[in-house]
Amino acid sequence: MSEIRYDVTGIGNAIVDVIARAEDDFLVAHGMHKGAMALIDEARAKGIYEAMGPATEISGGSAANTIVGAASLGARAAFIGKVKDDELGRSFGHDIRAAGVAFSTQPAAAGPATARSFIMVTPDGERTMNTYLGAAQDLHPNDIDAGVIAASAITYLEGYLWDPPHAKQAFLKAAKIAHEAKRKVALTLSDAFCVDRYRAEFLDLIRNGTVDLLFANERELHSLYQTGDFDTALVTLRKDTRLAVITRSEKGCVVVAGEKTEAVPAAPIEKVVDATGAGDLFAAGFLVGHARGLDHRTAARLGALAAAEIIQHIGARPETSLKALADASGIRLNGPPESRGFIS
Amino acid sequence: MSEIRYDVTGIGNAIVDVIARAEDDFLVAHGMHKGAMALIDEARAKGIYEAMGPATEISGGSAANTIVGAASLGARAAFIGKVKDDELGRSFGHDIRAAGVAFSTQPAAAGPATARSFIMVTPDGERTMNTYLGAAQDLHPNDIDAGVIAASAITYLEGYLWDPPHAKQAFLKAAKIAHEAKRKVALTLSDAFCVDRYRAEFLDLIRNGTVDLLFANERELHSLYQTGDFDTALVTLRKDTRLAVITRSEKGCVVVAGEKTEAVPAAPIEKVVDATGAGDLFAAGFLVGHARGLDHRTAARLGALAAAEIIQHIGARPETSLKALADASGIRLNGPPESRGFIS
Repeated sequence: MSEIRYDVTGIGNAIVDVIARAEDDFLVAHGMHKGAMALIDEARAKGIYEAMGPATEISGGSAANTIVGAASLGARAAFIGKVKDDELGRSFGHDIRAAGVAFSTQPAAAGPATARSFIMVTPDGERTMNTYLGAAQDLHPNDIDAGVIAASAITYLEGYLWDPPHAKQAFLKAAKIAHEAKRKVALTLSDAFCVDRYRAEFLDLIRNGTVDLLFANERELHSLYQTGDFDTALVTLRKDTRLAVITRSEKGCVVVAGEKTEAVPAAPIEKVVDATGAGDLFAAGFLVGHARGLDHRTAARLGALAAAEIIQHIGARPETSLKALADASGIRLNGPPESRGFIS
Repeated sequence: MSEIRYDVTGIGNAIVDVIARAEDDFLVAHGMHKGAMALIDEARAKGIYEAMGPATEISGGSAANTIVGAASLGARAAFIGKVKDDELGRSFGHDIRAAGVAFSTQPAAAGPATARSFIMVTPDGERTMNTYLGAAQDLHPNDIDAGVIAASAITYLEGYLWDPPHAKQAFLKAAKIAHEAKRKVALTLSDAFCVDRYRAEFLDLIRNGTVDLLFANERELHSLYQTGDFDTALVTLRKDTRLAVITRSEKGCVVVAGEKTEAVPAAPIEKVVDATGAGDLFAAGFLVGHARGLDHRTAARLGALAAAEIIQHIGARPETSLKALADASGIRLNGPPESRGFIS
């Protein structure tokens, strides 16, 4: 078996976030579902941008945020995703590399512009997203670097990859390479509306063994099993997965591993400034903890710690070293996983 | 005399800020003067960007920040400055208009890219700037809209305009139009190194009556009069100006009007997150207060309030309504100035 060079590699839509504050009225007036991600075309992107307030641009993308969070925790991390060779695309590349992440996906030379997500942050800190996929639509199976995937303890995939036309094939190719190399595959369901778009396919992935570790929040779990009752959903989830983590905002998370269930509280915070990235950063902490052999409860604590940092400022990329926060909280990471001992 | 339609119009370099956290060591290693603004060429811009950490892009520019602050205080405000018709230029235009500012300078169709300032924020909250002027270099006297200037109670100019080759002529043209329309002209000295580059010309502007209201911080004042002693500088300043406001960071500010001197304290804050824009937003408050006929002390309090908001978060654009903050502090603004009564 080849050597493990990365704790985690993420594959996802490479997006720059364009963040502005907005009142709840603005969401209503523009027909937006609060807290959800909607896909928009170029014309609507133009209309929303013209209507929205002064904005801040920060590199984003769900799996990309997770991977940057993993690097900030001290993990060895890589990312695969498609930008165009334009100003926003160069910003995205700069930011993820400057965060210490290996990123070598070839940018598109022509075609649509780098993807952007217009994020409206309401006074309660909740974020509502409208994403123009642009160049991210051109992620292709050829962009999957087999060497990187085979060398990653965990390959982490976002459900949003079901939206761009070829990314699904890229996703499946990566999962196959990972399993052939005896590595693990993790999936986040991304968004309740995304689950609604691809429910049958996601259930298939989970049940046929493509996914070893599932992340979802309560709304996504309810959407997956089409129920409004958390406990009902857990009964089915327990049968469908070997390991799943359900995040529940301020109520913390629940780790479900076969018959075992552990509830871990959220980390205390002063005020939610911008909820963007809460789930992404939770996943970062859990993935790194898991890759480094921590027990589920401690991995979840690491996730809660990373999520707490991100929601107290604008943007979904850490503003401080998450490793330093983990150290201060007494969570010690083991060294990198041994190639032979990890999948046991 | 024509009607007053704007409380304040700003003319300045139209710049997008690219903000990243950095340690003091980084500044030393890259030969940067902490707290200062250095002009850089395209090659150095590339080198700094490659070396710096993950960044946030927010529209900036000193006078532009001031004008957005004025609009946030409820004033009628306009801005003149040059961007290119590229992604960053369109962001700049979107942001300033979304803040409620009139902005109709024609973007450059060709030539260098929109100006950007790489801003390193050290752990103490101090900001160190490296600016690539790009398209801002092409601001030309033809870009000065005489109708806007004549309709503005105050025209506000930044000392940085001495750097681009034609902007100086634009500056002087605007000052002439303003005075012919019986309006006031304000100048900020911008930066101690900028003062060092253009000391004789700035002294000339101040002494020959081009400038009615001068803003400077302590370092700029010391640079202007080439002294390290504050009181010595004040003696000369008092002779050279009719009205000047010297900001002194946490010590507040001093308003010098002929023989009269008033010290006004800084507004209390919890922690300096990013000092970028402190002087710009102080000027916003003072200018709006002055345009609306408040006494110097109250105008300075309004400035202190706006500065306090800006240094408690990343970026030099307000994240909340400054008018609401002013209302909460009991500072009431009068209605717009009467055309005939203002310059009396």
